[in-house]
Amino acid sequence: MTPPRTAAVVGLGLIGGSVARELEAAGWSVLGHDADPDALEHARAEGVAAADLGPGMRRLTEAEWVIVAVPVDVAPALLAEIAPLLSGAVLVTDVGSTKRSIVAAAERLGLGHTFVGSHPLAGDHRSGWRASSRGLFRGARAFVTPTRTSTPETLNAARELWGLCGARVEMLDAEEHDARLAWISHLPQLASSALAVALESGNVARRDLGRGGRDLTRLAGSAPDLWTAIALENADALEPAIEALIAQLGEVRGALSRRDGRAVRRLLERGHRWTASS
Amino acid sequence: MTPPRTAAVVGLGLIGGSVARELEAAGWSVLGHDADPDALEHARAEGVAAADLGPGMRRLTEAEWVIVAVPVDVAPALLAEIAPLLSGAVLVTDVGSTKRSIVAAAERLGLGHTFVGSHPLAGDHRSGWRASSRGLFRGARAFVTPTRTSTPETLNAARELWGLCGARVEMLDAEEHDARLAWISHLPQLASSALAVALESGNVARRDLGRGGRDLTRLAGSAPDLWTAIALENADALEPAIEALIAQLGEVRGALSRRDGRAVRRLLERGHRWTASS
Repeated sequence: MTPPRTAAVVGLGLIGGSVARELEAAGWSVLGHDADPDALEHARAEGVAAADLGPGMRRLTEAEWVIVAVPVDVAPALLAEIAPLLSGAVLVTDVGSTKRSIVAAAERLGLGHTFVGSHPLAGDHRSGWRASSRGLFRGARAFVTPTRTSTPETLNAARELWGLCGARVEMLDAEEHDARLAWISHLPQLASSALAVALESGNVARRDLGRGGRDLTRLAGSAPDLWTAIALENADALEPAIEALIAQLGEVRGALSRRDGRAVRRLLERGHRWTASS
Repeated sequence: MTPPRTAAVVGLGLIGGSVARELEAAGWSVLGHDADPDALEHARAEGVAAADLGPGMRRLTEAEWVIVAVPVDVAPALLAEIAPLLSGAVLVTDVGSTKRSIVAAAERLGLGHTFVGSHPLAGDHRSGWRASSRGLFRGARAFVTPTRTSTPETLNAARELWGLCGARVEMLDAEEHDARLAWISHLPQLASSALAVALESGNVARRDLGRGGRDLTRLAGSAPDLWTAIALENADALEPAIEALIAQLGEVRGALSRRDGRAVRRLLERGHRWTASS
């Protein structure tokens, strides 16, 4: 019998915890770490994490794969801190919603060969170990963003990781990732939060809404700290996306104030066609 | 055995069709009408409508309850057309998303005693007979808006109607209804449509989105004609609601362009608190 392969998961929140669960289920030995000792405690009690990474995360040297699953504003500094322990790893990756800064940090730290950025598009408005689950990534896309020097071996390992999580890998450049995600994910998040605050300003409680309105405000329940970091990281790409939404809302408002039914219908038809066709 | 009570449903779309199904299930004899003869055909084939309302909707005179389930821009004219046939009815009501104009029309037409406006908050982005179903209103709110002269008998009949549909009745003034619904329902609809069009302008297809983004754009699939009419009808109440959303999005955009993390976090925290507390 071959000994189990060893992976390290740093950060046992929604994403890291779910990755750890999949690795464990696939027969890996998972070494875990979390800033909150309770999360690791739970992971161990549930049999997901075999052990702690130890003081100074020293046992990272034992890991074939290292998954850094911490907020995007913390990941580069953490990567710098653990860099000396990563020389034996085949794959070092993260799971953050923005990719330029972490890929740049990995290159700066001389980790380019074994690092590849990852971003599974399987978030949830909930967060933390308790929200983690097996199956979270099933059918989801996992964006994988290489460094300039990621080796084929590392890229294959990343494919294997997300494959065993049940996700479809989509390889793209970090720059392109951030530009696309500003629209695909970060704009909807901020639109939901802005709508929530607007509704509050109109004295509407969430329970007053119908199903459609509740759907629109679900993301507003996402963790403010995580999303503040993501929005700031990707501010340059996000600004034009928010602009575009403001422009469309301005169009409707203008059409309504002119009682211009044709212009209102034009916007509604365009949105309708888009949902039907794409 | 007492003969079944008779109700007339004019308009067998999502809402009218679902009301007809509930009435039929509750033992009523339902006389139906739809501008599209296919809808009535289907309703009869499924045993929901007992018969057609006949030429000129003449058989409306037989109905104890009359439910007008046509788009809000059509309802007042239709009510005027059928008014001479409604003297025997105990309840005449509609199901539209705006209430001021239909209540005013009923009063103008001398139908104030037997009319009461209704609006079950159980829409869906789909429409038409095929989208109708039993159970659509279960647990939903049905707003009921009296005229100045609605009789207690008529109000009780409206309660009975929505009660047998499984909805909770909430009685309020037509003016107040439209002011509240601008925020609760019409703003989310337009926000979803505007987001869809903004995403299209950013070359994003709906299938590119994650679960959250798909939730936010579901309402954009609603029928453009129905919603153009609703938005125009309620334009005065809607404008400040759209303004409020534009203002919040402007705040985020400003905060991002200043890279002001505290301001971004403030908005996200406010939205988060609102979803958690209400």
